[in-house]
Amino acid sequence: MRYEEMVIEGRNAVLEAFRSGKTIDKLFVLDGCQDGPIKSILREARKQDTVVNYVSRERLDQMSESRKHQGAIAYAAAYDYAQVEDILQRAEQKGEPPFLILLDGIEDPHNLGAIIRTANLAGAHGVVIPKRRAAGLTAAVAKASAGAINYTPVAKVTNLSATIKELKKKGVWFVCADMGGDSMYELDLKGPIGLVVGGEGEGASRLVKENCDFAAAIPMAGEIDSLNASVATGVLAYEIVRQRLGMAVH
Amino acid sequence: MRYEEMVIEGRNAVLEAFRSGKTIDKLFVLDGCQDGPIKSILREARKQDTVVNYVSRERLDQMSESRKHQGAIAYAAAYDYAQVEDILQRAEQKGEPPFLILLDGIEDPHNLGAIIRTANLAGAHGVVIPKRRAAGLTAAVAKASAGAINYTPVAKVTNLSATIKELKKKGVWFVCADMGGDSMYELDLKGPIGLVVGGEGEGASRLVKENCDFAAAIPMAGEIDSLNASVATGVLAYEIVRQRLGMAVH
Repeated sequence: MRYEEMVIEGRNAVLEAFRSGKTIDKLFVLDGCQDGPIKSILREARKQDTVVNYVSRERLDQMSESRKHQGAIAYAAAYDYAQVEDILQRAEQKGEPPFLILLDGIEDPHNLGAIIRTANLAGAHGVVIPKRRAAGLTAAVAKASAGAINYTPVAKVTNLSATIKELKKKGVWFVCADMGGDSMYELDLKGPIGLVVGGEGEGASRLVKENCDFAAAIPMAGEIDSLNASVATGVLAYEIVRQRLGMAVH
Repeated sequence: MRYEEMVIEGRNAVLEAFRSGKTIDKLFVLDGCQDGPIKSILREARKQDTVVNYVSRERLDQMSESRKHQGAIAYAAAYDYAQVEDILQRAEQKGEPPFLILLDGIEDPHNLGAIIRTANLAGAHGVVIPKRRAAGLTAAVAKASAGAINYTPVAKVTNLSATIKELKKKGVWFVCADMGGDSMYELDLKGPIGLVVGGEGEGASRLVKENCDFAAAIPMAGEIDSLNASVATGVLAYEIVRQRLGMAVH
């Protein structure tokens, strides 16, 4: 297992990383910088649909480990991303209806790691995360996943709503975690399913919610607002497991 | 809400803290130190059954913020502990069969906080933790609990097995999270219940397991060993919620 994170600093190093096909999770470029090498980097970033952050020199200096960033710092994923298609194939190979977990903006690496861990054990075929406002496959995520990152594919997509629409055409139903939804116990979650869970702060975005077929609520008895995001994902994922197992009730 | 942690340094300050009735989560005393004031502190610690750690001067120097520890540093709980009896009373007031969550050695404050959060929302009447090898109610735990620590009582006991035995006399049944147990879906978890979950590394201790009535396994499909401790607690707690709600099956 390789848990190290890759920070790539300097124009040539960043450009080479893009050209070698490395997945760059995040690119930071000096705001206002317009010279040739930076333009080449931005062109590569556009090709790969990488999120670009334009930041001040002070910010880059703070981030830099080598102190030689030359206006460009890139963070490469510590792990390889899969394609959504790979996840569907995995379900097919196992002869199971697809079960995906889609995360709309989980920013805490411990939560993302715990969710990949849950996905592995609940028998989900993969996890889908968006490129923006989300933790990527960093070393901290790998560690929190307790090794699950080596088994459970994680795909990163530009537009979660577009991915949901495409998968719906292939017969996958989507259920979104939503406190205003129907009790999860009252929904039929047995077929090909995508479980959508929103970020720690605000939950899933309106557009993503609108594209889902169902909204599932976890019954809540207490005084506070919401469960921890990875706990909520675990509870919902295991309601899907229970229904798939066709378990009887006491 | 008060999230600050209390570090108390110096012999008089530590002695006063004990005498004023503050709950001291942990006491660190200079190893080999036998003078009067330290002996008084140790006497108070024994009275309150506080865990005492005998450490080197170097260790105390490292821990000290004031650099004036005089051989004694105490960590006071950021929150007040409840009694197990308070938890039972809370169930009685609500007219519900008691539902307790007992943690055998959860050391990660984020996990403890997330579990208190889950306990609150799953309608558990309280959480019981042991004095040794466990996170106490620190500021980090309070933060991770998202406010639940203000509502859900947490009791700290010297001997978890003894507490389980006493509660069994009062009609509470105990179910321990255990990968080698029966599927949680096949157990009847509807009555007065204590859910016992072990620590991140080794699970519950043998003695605690032996004192439980049931061992419940979460079905696991994947390649890795176990769920994150707070996710596992959430999944089991919600199986109890589901059975208590008497939900029908799809």
